[in-house]
Amino acid sequence: MNQSESEHYMDLALEEARAAGLIGEVPIGAVIVHDGQVVGRGHNLREHSQDSTLHAEILAIQEACMTLGSWRLEDCDLYVTLEPCPMCAGAMINSRIRRCYYGAPDPKAGAAGTLVDLLSDQRFNHQVEVVAGLKQAEAAGLLQNFFRGIRAKRKAAKKARQEGSA
Amino acid sequence: MNQSESEHYMDLALEEARAAGLIGEVPIGAVIVHDGQVVGRGHNLREHSQDSTLHAEILAIQEACMTLGSWRLEDCDLYVTLEPCPMCAGAMINSRIRRCYYGAPDPKAGAAGTLVDLLSDQRFNHQVEVVAGLKQAEAAGLLQNFFRGIRAKRKAAKKARQEGSA
Repeated sequence: MNQSESEHYMDLALEEARAAGLIGEVPIGAVIVHDGQVVGRGHNLREHSQDSTLHAEILAIQEACMTLGSWRLEDCDLYVTLEPCPMCAGAMINSRIRRCYYGAPDPKAGAAGTLVDLLSDQRFNHQVEVVAGLKQAEAAGLLQNFFRGIRAKRKAAKKARQEGSA
Repeated sequence: MNQSESEHYMDLALEEARAAGLIGEVPIGAVIVHDGQVVGRGHNLREHSQDSTLHAEILAIQEACMTLGSWRLEDCDLYVTLEPCPMCAGAMINSRIRRCYYGAPDPKAGAAGTLVDLLSDQRFNHQVEVVAGLKQAEAAGLLQNFFRGIRAKRKAAKKARQEGSA
């Protein structure tokens, strides 16, 4: 996999992340690639679904399993804009993902090296190769803008409440 | 929660596990209880669905989220016959499950104390209390019988092939 190819797939994951942001979800996106084809994609849908399991990676893995007709995603690479949490890292181990490219590290829940390192733990029956920091600035920027927007909205709402009760 | 109540809910999880075994899936089952009511249940469906994410706990969590209309399962307890893998332990953290009762430990993928201990890791934003070994013998027995049956079938098939080619 050369640099421009992996950047292209991360661009698709960033597109997914922006799709999440547009509907008010934390902007995280993922795609899965098999033999040069995108076989699964997903973006965070936790709030719209009110389902805690619907992270970008889980949706992408479920779609890839359906596309390939198998729970074994053995020659598949997963691209995700934010370092996976334990649930999503565990799902990658369970589905035998070959390689995980991620954008920004996650200091709060990162399970691919930041808080724990599940993907390279030799005690599990599969290890996932990790490439960290691909298009990190862009992935982190999306998240920063999203949370900045939320804080601005909260501040404006508070100001409006204070003015209303004055 | 008294002993007989928690045993009753583990019996329901064991029922789910048997339902999985009856259709040839590895017999693992889970239920989620909120305020004395079962709000989610599930059994392993990996082979039938060919979806690596469809473990008993994930299905039970998804159903509980739907039942309660929220991704936050804050006062919910999850009963599962086998110690959760990293994916399922991560899903419990993500959904703020209060307590996890499990039956048999899993030496190959246990993420609630056996290989890793995700549920009590203070660095994540939620911890899940763990009660291990509830109805352990029964849960382990189901799994042992299942794998014994598979080995017997394989042996019989091999013998039939050898006799056929003799």
